[in-house]
Amino acid sequence: DDNLKVFTLNSNPELAYEITKEIGVEMGKSSVTRFSDGEIQINIEESIRGCDIFVIQSTSSPANEHIMELLIMIDALKRASANNINVVLPYYGYARQDRKARSREPITAKLVANLLETAGATRVISLDLHATQIQGFFDIPVDQLVGVPILANYFEEKDLGDIVIVSPDHGGVVRARKMADRLKAPIAIIDKRRPKPNMAEVMNIVGNIEGKTAIIIDDIIDTAGTMTLAANAMIENGAKEVYACSTHPVLSGPAIERIQNSKIKELVVTNTIPLPEEKMIDNITQLSVAPLLAKAIVHVHEQRSVSRLFD
Amino acid sequence: DDNLKVFTLNSNPELAYEITKEIGVEMGKSSVTRFSDGEIQINIEESIRGCDIFVIQSTSSPANEHIMELLIMIDALKRASANNINVVLPYYGYARQDRKARSREPITAKLVANLLETAGATRVISLDLHATQIQGFFDIPVDQLVGVPILANYFEEKDLGDIVIVSPDHGGVVRARKMADRLKAPIAIIDKRRPKPNMAEVMNIVGNIEGKTAIIIDDIIDTAGTMTLAANAMIENGAKEVYACSTHPVLSGPAIERIQNSKIKELVVTNTIPLPEEKMIDNITQLSVAPLLAKAIVHVHEQRSVSRLFD
Ligand SMILES: Nc1ncnc2c1ncn2[C@@H]1O[C@H](COP(=O)(O)O)[C@@H](O)[C@H]1O
Ligand SMILES: Nc1ncnc2c1ncn2[C@@H]1O[C@H](COP(=O)(O)O)[C@@H](O)[C@H]1O
Repeated sequence: DDNLKVFTLNSNPELAYEITKEIGVEMGKSSVTRFSDGEIQINIEESIRGCDIFVIQSTSSPANEHIMELLIMIDALKRASANNINVVLPYYGYARQDRKARSREPITAKLVANLLETAGATRVISLDLHATQIQGFFDIPVDQLVGVPILANYFEEKDLGDIVIVSPDHGGVVRARKMADRLKAPIAIIDKRRPKPNMAEVMNIVGNIEGKTAIIIDDIIDTAGTMTLAANAMIENGAKEVYACSTHPVLSGPAIERIQNSKIKELVVTNTIPLPEEKMIDNITQLSVAPLLAKAIVHVHEQRSVSRLFD
Repeated sequence: DDNLKVFTLNSNPELAYEITKEIGVEMGKSSVTRFSDGEIQINIEESIRGCDIFVIQSTSSPANEHIMELLIMIDALKRASANNINVVLPYYGYARQDRKARSREPITAKLVANLLETAGATRVISLDLHATQIQGFFDIPVDQLVGVPILANYFEEKDLGDIVIVSPDHGGVVRARKMADRLKAPIAIIDKRRPKPNMAEVMNIVGNIEGKTAIIIDDIIDTAGTMTLAANAMIENGAKEVYACSTHPVLSGPAIERIQNSKIKELVVTNTIPLPEEKMIDNITQLSVAPLLAKAIVHVHEQRSVSRLFD
């Protein structure tokens, strides 16, 4: 199909090439380089007039560079007469800045949505947005795919016996519930509270984990503080073993060290964010979202509903 | 005047503090830091409800970081109920990507204009935009200040005797003309042409430079290729000495080395872009645009015309 073109930028070229292979198309030809002063120089090196374009870019670290690269690419595609510009964001950066937690803060997740639309994006395809409300930040269609089936399949095949799915906080219960349904397992929730201001947080576990294999699930694993504390609390409270899983491996700062020093037997993540060599430690397993994104791209291109992909 | 607030970001804090000193106001209180994963975290730390805000930020290298910092700051200011948000861009990055030089290129200078408006900028104050057409990329008021008077004053005081003002290309003749008028000097133009494709460029000098002190003027000095070739051509063609001046010292890549190895006696620039230690070489002189920008800010705040500042 000559009308479907996939382009990659610099956040996830490996994932992007996997996606084009799955779909059975060549990678769109473009050059993304830098001028001497560091400004981005983009040139699209084939005609795209009238085409359905899919640009693959996570706005992962360095987020600002990746956002600007994406915006400039969209501008170039628009001016080259693309029929439409579908932005595939395996990981949506700045998603945690989705509300004013204090006065006089920005809402950067909304700003980025506005910037993408201003540049000329006509549709967004993303995976496990930190808050589903981010869909509403856009006035263009947003398809939100979910990582749970990919993670659940992996654990299903592992067949760990008597398991319990654990949400590390109240915000993640819906996700844990979905995972538990797929694996026909019960859930548990870590209920953190601070008895008094300035007193240490108390970790109370709601649900039965005694003697079970705990699988903790979260959408983003960043500094790994939440995840490793939760894992240790599991073992202290009688769990047999503990696994962790997360769609987006941000893994910044002390993350890798914390994971290595924790009770986590294995951390399972996806490739919405690529892992550099030094983060590829033995007990991290990375699963590919390429088949899922490839299917979503083909569905969108053929104007079929993406929501079927959730079954 | 409690209603006027100036904020700085990370491109030019020294210039920004100079500006607040000139105006006689305190620097607006804000915190601009990074989360562990490198995402920008901004908080405005004083009430700005109903205020006239001036944010000072050059979108100089690293341009993408500086642009995102500015956009996020504008978003925070807007949500904190600023009366208006005046963006002071001493240097407007991406200005050279102001047209499609080849097919399927972006027009990033226009994209950045759209992004600033989308974020919530209500006015732009800039200095020596690479192309005056960039004013038309905005649908909000744009005040364009000029660096020529500052540079001309410096050379006037130096009193170099028999001088000629030189434009390094045809695009810069208007600027050279303005400088020449102020210094009551003649002009010369370097007329580059390529006799045949793949043949070396020929540098022809239009105007009389014999025995004179040449002052070459350009808006941006980036890799310094144009400037140093022009300087050498001056000496080869009989000029006594050669000075160079430019508003925006981008000075990327081989710039400093080229200047050191050239016939340029002194390069005079402004502080629209700060010079790091390693670029502060002996024959570079940096003049401050703080008095000019301070005046412009006060004029805008008092709703007086900024065009008077050109006199
Ligand atoms: N990149 C980031 N890293 C860490 N925390 C962040 C980041 N972006 C936003 N936040 C903060 O995370 C909190 C929201 O996270 P959550 O409660 O998990 O939705 C807010 O207080 C934000 O200020
Ligand atoms: N940051 C940059 N560094 C060097 N060249 C650039 C930069 N941005 C744009 N250009 C190119 O500079 C040319 C325009 O410069 P000018 O002819 O001086 O207006 C175009 O061919 C642009 O592609």
